[in-house]
Amino acid sequence: MSVKKYIQDNQEKFLNELIDLLKIPSVSADPKFKDDVFAAAEFVRSSLEKAGADNVELCQTAGYPIVYGEKIINPELPTVLVYGHYDVQPADPYELWDSPPFEPVIKKTERHPEGAIFARGSADDKGQFYMHVKAFEAMMSNDELPCNIKFMIEGEEEVGSEHLDIFVKENKEKLKADVVLVSDTHMISLENPSVTVGLRGLAYMQVEVTGPNRDLHSGTYGGAVANPINILCKMIASLQDENNHITIPGFYDKVETYADDYRKALNDAPFDLEAYKKELDINDVHGEAGYSTIERVGIRPTLDVNGIWGGYTGEGAKTVLPSKAYAKISMRLVPNQDHKEISRLFEEHFKAIAPASVKVKVTPHHGGQAAVVSTETPGYRAADLAIKEAFGKKAIPTREGGSIPICSLFQKELGLDPILLGFGLDTDALHSPNEHYGVKNYYMGIETIALFFKYFKEEASK
Amino acid sequence: MSVKKYIQDNQEKFLNELIDLLKIPSVSADPKFKDDVFAAAEFVRSSLEKAGADNVELCQTAGYPIVYGEKIINPELPTVLVYGHYDVQPADPYELWDSPPFEPVIKKTERHPEGAIFARGSADDKGQFYMHVKAFEAMMSNDELPCNIKFMIEGEEEVGSEHLDIFVKENKEKLKADVVLVSDTHMISLENPSVTVGLRGLAYMQVEVTGPNRDLHSGTYGGAVANPINILCKMIASLQDENNHITIPGFYDKVETYADDYRKALNDAPFDLEAYKKELDINDVHGEAGYSTIERVGIRPTLDVNGIWGGYTGEGAKTVLPSKAYAKISMRLVPNQDHKEISRLFEEHFKAIAPASVKVKVTPHHGGQAAVVSTETPGYRAADLAIKEAFGKKAIPTREGGSIPICSLFQKELGLDPILLGFGLDTDALHSPNEHYGVKNYYMGIETIALFFKYFKEEASK
Repeated sequence: MSVKKYIQDNQEKFLNELIDLLKIPSVSADPKFKDDVFAAAEFVRSSLEKAGADNVELCQTAGYPIVYGEKIINPELPTVLVYGHYDVQPADPYELWDSPPFEPVIKKTERHPEGAIFARGSADDKGQFYMHVKAFEAMMSNDELPCNIKFMIEGEEEVGSEHLDIFVKENKEKLKADVVLVSDTHMISLENPSVTVGLRGLAYMQVEVTGPNRDLHSGTYGGAVANPINILCKMIASLQDENNHITIPGFYDKVETYADDYRKALNDAPFDLEAYKKELDINDVHGEAGYSTIERVGIRPTLDVNGIWGGYTGEGAKTVLPSKAYAKISMRLVPNQDHKEISRLFEEHFKAIAPASVKVKVTPHHGGQAAVVSTETPGYRAADLAIKEAFGKKAIPTREGGSIPICSLFQKELGLDPILLGFGLDTDALHSPNEHYGVKNYYMGIETIALFFKYFKEEASK
Repeated sequence: MSVKKYIQDNQEKFLNELIDLLKIPSVSADPKFKDDVFAAAEFVRSSLEKAGADNVELCQTAGYPIVYGEKIINPELPTVLVYGHYDVQPADPYELWDSPPFEPVIKKTERHPEGAIFARGSADDKGQFYMHVKAFEAMMSNDELPCNIKFMIEGEEEVGSEHLDIFVKENKEKLKADVVLVSDTHMISLENPSVTVGLRGLAYMQVEVTGPNRDLHSGTYGGAVANPINILCKMIASLQDENNHITIPGFYDKVETYADDYRKALNDAPFDLEAYKKELDINDVHGEAGYSTIERVGIRPTLDVNGIWGGYTGEGAKTVLPSKAYAKISMRLVPNQDHKEISRLFEEHFKAIAPASVKVKVTPHHGGQAAVVSTETPGYRAADLAIKEAFGKKAIPTREGGSIPICSLFQKELGLDPILLGFGLDTDALHSPNEHYGVKNYYMGIETIALFFKYFKEEASK
């Protein structure tokens, strides 16, 4: 297939283009990077145009623009809608990066012997959505695009995709397609290629606990006036019992329980607990009693404090009894748990457990629904066949702990099951310092995506 | 008494000098204010000289200098050693100050109808130790200094007085005196003048909890890997039970229990709980079961988190499972509790309760012993008589929750009971934004201190 040759002949060019994109610090969570986020959108727009897309445009929203482009070769043929995001997570703490987060470097690692690109966004999601742009370019240059294609690349995935939600609801006709293809997940390994068939939902809250109306001297008032940090710690601690079950009333009401054979199949996926602990430098894993590590991240909901702050955090010692303490708390949800309902249950419970000596404020940040993908669709079969041809192995269906809230949006609004064809590894340090993406994963991904189009045309017309 | 007239004639001058001293941001905890701390030392040195002290010097230490000065009018007469500190607490959070912390302004308040000086250090302790310099000036200018006087003003009180400790041990002869006089505490009110006869000790710790070796994506790892913030909250919460008793084994072993009549006397001191709650804008007080608010801050030990931080604390949402979480935790101690032993008990316990899934580091910051002052000494009687003449009322002996670790140092090394003749109010916002000190308290203090010298000469020679 000449597409494959084109991809191999252009590896260096494809890599350098990605590196240029990674140099743009498009952090959507932090207003000070506003111009960079817009610059990244423009980069995507122009690369889609160069690759041969029609009607390329920056669809303005109340937030960051959504980049749209399409190539309709024949209305009779099936249409693939490609989704990705050009925004990235904040890079802090910067001091923990071995190289600056927005100055990409290629280094070999144990899991990436052929080298990986180290930069914020390399795996999540610039390195992954850009594979689709390059696969598209390869198919176009060889007049071998088998289906129609539509691109929808947004800039607010890391902050809740609020405006994408509106955009999709208002543009159902424009986005009409037969499948949504998303590369924003990871596979077990290049030796054990997998396709994600489940994602968790998310409910992200911020809480504020107020004690006295001002910071106080901990000597003069300590012991007599509620310390909001001590209280916040007690409240957070009480959200999970000694078995790490979440104690919020009603939290588990809609959580699916799975048959033993399903759980067994899940646990049969290749997983080395010792290697997992070694790689994270932990003596033990920690989670809900009665479930394996794979189940804890795959089919069970969680509650994590993503950030906490209050009082004096500077150099030295300050004997203060602070007025306020804060925390960012997020819950990963499983299918049937509605993030809005869970947010409400959290808020009610968190206020209910506050002692009279403090005041509590709860602010839901953003959320998204969990998603489960059927393996019985033309899209999944096409992904399976593409992987078999590219990797010489059948894909393992897996549940992933992360959330891509818009998946459930596509199912609800467009009636489309997303195909989560990701090529990252769980060790790629997504959302962490030293995020990286394997160079080989990048090239293999481009090839596999091109193959997906070939097989999807066949499967969709069966 | 012409000293009194001199003080009244020079009120404006005394106030302006204090304002100049308050403009120096001598924050000892933060290295970036190093030059300012030295500048404050120099200010004290020159003001002692101007007031008429001999042998004034900056005694260098491995940290900030101790300002010494003396006036020996007759070796046969009793000698008063005045202690104070020219360093101040950090001023952050700056945004909560109504006026810049190092640009003093005078404003009226409910409790200071004649105005108060708003500035960091106004009450703790610049405004209070400087009263001694001015009282000394007044007595000198009228040739009415009744006793010998020695000044020892340090610059590290807010960070543990580490080098004062060494200085005192090495200069026992130089510091030889009959009493130590300290104004670094508060009284109930100008209508109910009191003298502090008890102070709590302090053990200040910093803890670090480490989970995985890097920040992780809370979706990919959440629920399976220990989150150091959740764990830290659970550990901190477990340090106090449902009655707010501290759970560290051995913590209470040496805590004195008091007879009912002693506790009754303590609770007879004027105290308005409703006004206390109103002033702090809290719906309820919060502390150890079985004790009143006065007892909770006076005769019982405490455990307060003074600061906590970990994970993402910036704008917006970041779904991170952090590698580390930190807290600054301090315990106020009562007589007989040794701060070194308590620090050790804390460290042992905190490490013991950590689950295998995390690593814990505990660093003792600094500490000090509690102090109890006898009311049966010439020093206390002199303070009592001085207050009676200045305020027209007998002084109420009180226990104060704060710590002046060097008090026990004076008792141990110099064999001297410190007289804690403070003129601040508990509402002066020590260690808080908008710290202030009553202008009338300042003037009354200078008068009372001059009277103390008159009466101490009489009492000491009885």
